[in-house]
Amino acid sequence: MAKCLVAQSGGPTSVINATVAGVVKANQLNPIYDTVLGGIHGIEGILNEQFVDLTHMSEEENQILRQTPSSALGSCRYKLKRENVADFKRLFEVMEKHDIRTLFYTGGNDSMDTVAALDEYAKANNIEGFQFVGCPKTVDNDLMVMDHAPGFASAAKFIATTAYQTWMDSTVYTRQDVFILETMGRDAGWLAASACVSGIVDVLVLPELPFDKEAFLAAVKKQLDAKNKCYVVVSEGVRYADGTYLAAGESKNDTFGHAVLGGAGNALKELILDSGISERAKVQDLSNAQRSHASEQSKVDVEESFKLGMSAHMRSVDPKFSGQTVYVRRVEGDTYDVEFDATASSNIANHVRNFPQEWVLPNFAGITEEAHAYFAPLLVGRPDIKFDEKGLPLQVKPYYMR
Amino acid sequence: MAKCLVAQSGGPTSVINATVAGVVKANQLNPIYDTVLGGIHGIEGILNEQFVDLTHMSEEENQILRQTPSSALGSCRYKLKRENVADFKRLFEVMEKHDIRTLFYTGGNDSMDTVAALDEYAKANNIEGFQFVGCPKTVDNDLMVMDHAPGFASAAKFIATTAYQTWMDSTVYTRQDVFILETMGRDAGWLAASACVSGIVDVLVLPELPFDKEAFLAAVKKQLDAKNKCYVVVSEGVRYADGTYLAAGESKNDTFGHAVLGGAGNALKELILDSGISERAKVQDLSNAQRSHASEQSKVDVEESFKLGMSAHMRSVDPKFSGQTVYVRRVEGDTYDVEFDATASSNIANHVRNFPQEWVLPNFAGITEEAHAYFAPLLVGRPDIKFDEKGLPLQVKPYYMR
Repeated sequence: MAKCLVAQSGGPTSVINATVAGVVKANQLNPIYDTVLGGIHGIEGILNEQFVDLTHMSEEENQILRQTPSSALGSCRYKLKRENVADFKRLFEVMEKHDIRTLFYTGGNDSMDTVAALDEYAKANNIEGFQFVGCPKTVDNDLMVMDHAPGFASAAKFIATTAYQTWMDSTVYTRQDVFILETMGRDAGWLAASACVSGIVDVLVLPELPFDKEAFLAAVKKQLDAKNKCYVVVSEGVRYADGTYLAAGESKNDTFGHAVLGGAGNALKELILDSGISERAKVQDLSNAQRSHASEQSKVDVEESFKLGMSAHMRSVDPKFSGQTVYVRRVEGDTYDVEFDATASSNIANHVRNFPQEWVLPNFAGITEEAHAYFAPLLVGRPDIKFDEKGLPLQVKPYYMR
Repeated sequence: MAKCLVAQSGGPTSVINATVAGVVKANQLNPIYDTVLGGIHGIEGILNEQFVDLTHMSEEENQILRQTPSSALGSCRYKLKRENVADFKRLFEVMEKHDIRTLFYTGGNDSMDTVAALDEYAKANNIEGFQFVGCPKTVDNDLMVMDHAPGFASAAKFIATTAYQTWMDSTVYTRQDVFILETMGRDAGWLAASACVSGIVDVLVLPELPFDKEAFLAAVKKQLDAKNKCYVVVSEGVRYADGTYLAAGESKNDTFGHAVLGGAGNALKELILDSGISERAKVQDLSNAQRSHASEQSKVDVEESFKLGMSAHMRSVDPKFSGQTVYVRRVEGDTYDVEFDATASSNIANHVRNFPQEWVLPNFAGITEEAHAYFAPLLVGRPDIKFDEKGLPLQVKPYYMR
């Protein structure tokens, strides 16, 4: 028997650890690997042989891991570039040395590209006996093929809840008030759109549509004329028709060449104040809290993420199962249900699934009934979580700090 | 029998409605008033005779009201000024007209001043048959006399939880990282200090101590040298020794002459980047979400706020009980327990209770064991809350929108 290795990459989510917990639990139910290793800091740590043994994780720790947000194994932004052959050689060398047969890699589309690239490299070089399995996660929900990505629903739940609660907060006075909630979402508006589940969003600004300043101001003014208040939700990645980000003043590139965003909410505030339609506008940028707020996990999301890890492990019993990503498919029918399926990781790598334009109402008026029906079952349920004596949720100590 | 009137003022909290629910429930248990009116938008709406009848609120609505954040009756920033005699005359006229004997007023130190002023006016003018009772609330926890103010513990719980979770989020990469969490707290550092309950705060910047830039940068650098990460918590109201706010660039005054703050986190970020000790610093301003995040209420806080409303109602059976504020006193002993007491509202009005300087460790290193012992029991417990079919917490429709 060989070992398997599970590692995490990309930005944290509230439920990314549940997938790791699922891999560990599946191997306890059917120990097809003699050891389940956790890779510290993704590919970056694996290249340095940084591992932790998760094989005999207790049921209690497994449960607490599921309620722990962020990447308990640590993460990385390190991308395996196909031209950098030395990295590939080193990675296979490390796997060979430690008798690691299978790598389960959780992440977004960059990470799924890593899975695809490793599988391609093995096939191109006739290297046998290794498997690479992708486990998707992203709060952005912008991954192709799947109905939704693990991690999205919990972030959406935090956003929808916070939207409702800050809407109440922003309407208590008789004065005119504009409140602007900024969510993550570089290219895809899923997170911003999810705020509409709260039922209180007046003006929704998504990155899928070129931003029209005059139409936006008209939409805000219409709300203010009607009720003296306006609740705006904006995605960080909103752009003008020429491709300039609203938050362009602050943009720069990260190591992958993505624009680093922030400030779309403040940009809208400036537009509103400059236009004179309101003298007040308050901005709340949900920033990192939205992707790590495990106290408000969706039970549906946690359970699916956990099962996805189990499914990935169980499918890997087939030695030919490699270069594949396990994903969630929604079953047609009156009651919400999902099945787990697998697709070539290359189908997900480096693509972006946008929020469907046909689900967007004109004039920033929010989302269609179809979109509401899509979101409706995803945020449901509150996991039974364990607390410490001070009233805070119990969380595992990060493995990368042990 | 006469009526009573309960109204809300000042900034929202997560549990301010529980006090209203307590007044209503107490009158159902012992109907010393024939009607319990809710005043819409505080004093501002009362002067306009805007009321809602809460007398026969169902147990179900009462429970949902307790889990509803913000001010369900609406709030106001309108201050009764003693020189503005017309307002006083009008208020007594409205109370007389509607047969309102008692006004329960929830709020912070400005609102307690309103309670004191109304009682003084009545006594000075020999107006009999009216009672004014203060019910304290503030997330800032800066009210005199009491052990803690209702509303504080739930905000503190959200802050401590979010601190822990964003700390995990900010440490997942191997790179150097500085994360700065900005909390509310104009003059008092209670909220910022409460982040220390999470156990992960490296550098705590409170408004009670004049800000020393060099000492701050040294504290951050020490952490970065030791572990390449630094988690900073800062209160919005931090000032230099000359009284200038860190966030001075954005400060202006609100209608009460208070400085409107925001941006202390960004000011620290700039200091850090300019100093060259780190190339990265991320800021999260918790903004309004921290005071309205009812999904993470402290059970202790909700129950105390509810009981405080009941206590205020029950004490008002004594016609001489006026110009008084009901408050929570911690009972000495090994187990956490409180009793409810009352004090002249003038003892609370217009004062600020700072976070004790003797609870602050030198060099921004956090808080003492005594401070930890103070916080420890306040955040405990998760109320059993009710959810709608989409997975969001049920909340009453604001009475000011009905």
